[in-house]
Amino acid sequence: MYYKLTIAYDGTRYKGWQKQTHTDATIQGKLEAVLSKIFDQPIDIHGSGRTDAGVHALAQIASFKATKIIQSDVLINTLNRYLPEDISVQGVALLSEPFHARFDAKKKTYVYRIWQAVHPPIFERKYVAQHVSEKLNLHAMRQAATHFIGTHDFKAFSTEKSKKSTVRTIEKIDIHELEHEVQVHITGDGFLHNMVRIIVGTLIEVGLDQYPMATIPSTLAHKDRVYAGETAPACGLILKSVTY
Amino acid sequence: MYYKLTIAYDGTRYKGWQKQTHTDATIQGKLEAVLSKIFDQPIDIHGSGRTDAGVHALAQIASFKATKIIQSDVLINTLNRYLPEDISVQGVALLSEPFHARFDAKKKTYVYRIWQAVHPPIFERKYVAQHVSEKLNLHAMRQAATHFIGTHDFKAFSTEKSKKSTVRTIEKIDIHELEHEVQVHITGDGFLHNMVRIIVGTLIEVGLDQYPMATIPSTLAHKDRVYAGETAPACGLILKSVTY
Repeated sequence: MYYKLTIAYDGTRYKGWQKQTHTDATIQGKLEAVLSKIFDQPIDIHGSGRTDAGVHALAQIASFKATKIIQSDVLINTLNRYLPEDISVQGVALLSEPFHARFDAKKKTYVYRIWQAVHPPIFERKYVAQHVSEKLNLHAMRQAATHFIGTHDFKAFSTEKSKKSTVRTIEKIDIHELEHEVQVHITGDGFLHNMVRIIVGTLIEVGLDQYPMATIPSTLAHKDRVYAGETAPACGLILKSVTY
Repeated sequence: MYYKLTIAYDGTRYKGWQKQTHTDATIQGKLEAVLSKIFDQPIDIHGSGRTDAGVHALAQIASFKATKIIQSDVLINTLNRYLPEDISVQGVALLSEPFHARFDAKKKTYVYRIWQAVHPPIFERKYVAQHVSEKLNLHAMRQAATHFIGTHDFKAFSTEKSKKSTVRTIEKIDIHELEHEVQVHITGDGFLHNMVRIIVGTLIEVGLDQYPMATIPSTLAHKDRVYAGETAPACGLILKSVTY
């Protein structure tokens, strides 16, 4: 039987999604520990992708295989009883067909929240980048964003160390202005390490008139991280959804 | 010169608004410590009212008097630089006419947030009451709420120990249904100790068919706390606004 989990988490106190040998402060580690107890056998899960230390998720997807059948409502309630309060399983599906959260993922949407009110946030403070109070030029940011749409080699806008292809396709980037914040929504077929945060960091610099948007195409062509903008802080980033 | 401060805070790690001798974990204590340094003289502030341990505020109002004049933009920025990240001054006004945040308050609005999704909240978990997943009967709660509107002796719906009058006027109670939560908004001329939380706790019991709403008038008349519902948890309560 294949299991598909939908998981929300507050990444603040974790070292990221991926399990690590020297710390148990990872989302994957916490989930596997509880699942292995519930199923009474070692359970290895696959996430749709890694989220970095401090990054949050509204609907991360994970999959695993087990012989034992546990009904979804029982499993979800048991998981939420034993998981820490900053990890919450929002959905469980049992599938008879093979399902792999990473290999089967078609696209992902991330949201990056930038605080824009004059005074610091209180209830949102762990889930937004607390930007300086200067007003971002959204018109410039939206124009700059068009340079990232489509299929490009995003090596310059990542800290990816793997030797695999750094070509990805970004389907859309929407920039929304809310009462006290600016949100950047990015959808693509996959993202390299730090790619969303470097794209957003570059867009913020464009919005502050500190980065000339016309150089984005040549930065993509140079494939060199030094020409891109700063990496925006992890706390503002949220994995919003994964499409299969 | 009279100063009026508008303050937002996350009450989670505080023992409430009011200064205490045996702990510095109070909102008033933190504000007075920073203000006394900025003004270089002891500053005593008056809040519009006390909030209990764990209760939050979007716009608590406080006032104080000082001979020194500090411009509002300078004062707000200096305060926010030195205050902890869970207390944020949202506004400062300098007034030449006497102003007292408590005595001059005309009415207050509190919001109580009750989580109603099937699965536990993540980003909202410190700011809502994490209710059991049973669906609240909002129609019954709205009917029950009408019994509290108007001028009544609210002694039964409080833990007030003062010998002063326990008569208060509730102007309105609105119950809103959002995607994942139910919000109770209560506006009145003033509230006794624990009054909002006991009224909301009683309304929740009505919404779960555990408290007969028809007994609310006789409970008010009995003036005895034992006949009212449970006190709803502090974390779901937010002081939303104070009107002068």
